[in-house]
Amino acid sequence: MPGEFEIIRNWFDRKPSIDGLRTGIGDDGAVMHSTADSDQVVVTDTLVKGRHYPADAAAEDIGYRAMAVNLSDLAAMGAEPRYAFLNLSLDEPTEEWLDGFAEGFFSLAERFNVALAGGDTTRGPETITVTLIGDVPESRALLRSGARVGDWIAVTGEIGRAAAALECWRAGREIPDALDRAWRRPEPRIAAGLALRGLATSCIDVSDGLVADLGHILEKSKVGATLDADLLATDASREAWPHRPKRDFLFSGDDYELCFTFAPDDEQRVRDALAKSGTALTVCGEVRDITAGFDVKCDGEWQPATEFAGWDHFRGSEK
Amino acid sequence: MPGEFEIIRNWFDRKPSIDGLRTGIGDDGAVMHSTADSDQVVVTDTLVKGRHYPADAAAEDIGYRAMAVNLSDLAAMGAEPRYAFLNLSLDEPTEEWLDGFAEGFFSLAERFNVALAGGDTTRGPETITVTLIGDVPESRALLRSGARVGDWIAVTGEIGRAAAALECWRAGREIPDALDRAWRRPEPRIAAGLALRGLATSCIDVSDGLVADLGHILEKSKVGATLDADLLATDASREAWPHRPKRDFLFSGDDYELCFTFAPDDEQRVRDALAKSGTALTVCGEVRDITAGFDVKCDGEWQPATEFAGWDHFRGSEK
Repeated sequence: MPGEFEIIRNWFDRKPSIDGLRTGIGDDGAVMHSTADSDQVVVTDTLVKGRHYPADAAAEDIGYRAMAVNLSDLAAMGAEPRYAFLNLSLDEPTEEWLDGFAEGFFSLAERFNVALAGGDTTRGPETITVTLIGDVPESRALLRSGARVGDWIAVTGEIGRAAAALECWRAGREIPDALDRAWRRPEPRIAAGLALRGLATSCIDVSDGLVADLGHILEKSKVGATLDADLLATDASREAWPHRPKRDFLFSGDDYELCFTFAPDDEQRVRDALAKSGTALTVCGEVRDITAGFDVKCDGEWQPATEFAGWDHFRGSEK
Repeated sequence: MPGEFEIIRNWFDRKPSIDGLRTGIGDDGAVMHSTADSDQVVVTDTLVKGRHYPADAAAEDIGYRAMAVNLSDLAAMGAEPRYAFLNLSLDEPTEEWLDGFAEGFFSLAERFNVALAGGDTTRGPETITVTLIGDVPESRALLRSGARVGDWIAVTGEIGRAAAALECWRAGREIPDALDRAWRRPEPRIAAGLALRGLATSCIDVSDGLVADLGHILEKSKVGATLDADLLATDASREAWPHRPKRDFLFSGDDYELCFTFAPDDEQRVRDALAKSGTALTVCGEVRDITAGFDVKCDGEWQPATEFAGWDHFRGSEK
């Protein structure tokens, strides 16, 4: 089994050359410089083996996911990815596992021009923390708190494909390619996030489920909303799982799509910007006054959103 | 047992008000702004229960340590602490544990004006990752790579107190206060790091042991050195452990002192700056040409440094 310094040197220290990075891996910390007209966005996510990915997941998929879930958070803020920090707690990693993990991790890092600038490697239960730093023009980050009464609500792509893949896998059925990709290789919506700068009034990535995550926007923006779940695009997953109940789509977070709000007057600009970034979107709700509450239409029936909920990592249950 | 959002809300979301932090806990990421004449330093460290602290350690000591080891890395870079990010993987945390952890963590954070700006909380084996971001004036970070032939080598404070405390604890003896403090409450050398800006030619915090960590400076600076371990201050630990072999001090990293190099012409300025910051120092070596190698004097005898070594988290052994 390789040692700590050997792991860093052989698998992770790629000596990236990127504007602004003065010192990368190999000192007590990384040193970077930012331009005065930008803000820095910092996101971080921890993945625990057996909890955030199956214990027998392929190392390449784990490396990909650790980067993807964080890129998704940067996308939701409209930020351009810059630097990554990787904290690995690993229990007896083999060279083969490290090869696979690094392959998955760097395949995404390189596509999005992210420089691995630091981290920590130790022995322990398999737990992976990635921290990313991205740039946005000053005061232009997309926040959860900007939704205004009358805004429309939209989601990118298709919610529920990852959950449908999981369902196929559990049932021992073949997983259609499009679903398998959504499940094992979710595509971070970076291009969509950048396209929505200056257009979206609020934004979040759907990681806990659409109702729960839209709920975070409403809470931070102090508004209510209607969400018509019957409008959601579900073609890809219906093919594999035709009789899937609609409410099921409201709990699926693993697609890492974006949910955002915008002024109806900007609809065409939003559609054009997303089309240019190659991202589909579905308008599926409207922001209303907080006193009107949050209602969800599902299979033709309107219900308060409290009938639905998201995921809590501690309670470990979906409601 | 409290849920994820409850843990964040009740124990960690202190809504810090700090210049430059535009958005803290409660969005997909934190948004911060830096001035154009500063660089940002990012450090990160992961602590695993039973590996970096005893399984029965007090929660307050764990919270303190998670912050302290990272502050120590910022100190070694001469950086002023600004923002913290906390990733907690916890297995069934009680309210009492969370109270203690937050108390230890924030006691240091507040002393050093660090704002907790984000993080992640999940269930899993107890693993704690802290990432800190600090500021230095542009291009003034203290690096490992700047030591020059003829520089002198110094360490702050007293190496080996934490290891002596551990030894007392293992032997079931009473732990003298000064040692207990060094062990459970190591003091991050932030003031010393700031004082050494523009004076130290290289710097590192001693976390793996003095020989191993000075070795990192030599490697990055492409130089050799002599280190006279017999000069190290050891008063506090000798009282508790009189017959401790001198070579033992070369493996002790848990004191989190700084090891640094400086030009002999700057000696008085270095002494004055550290005295002003309330930090003791011991000059204990000299940088020489790389071809002359790295020799260590210990109990009167000179030996090549390869006779000594540090800690490798994967191999799990000290040599």
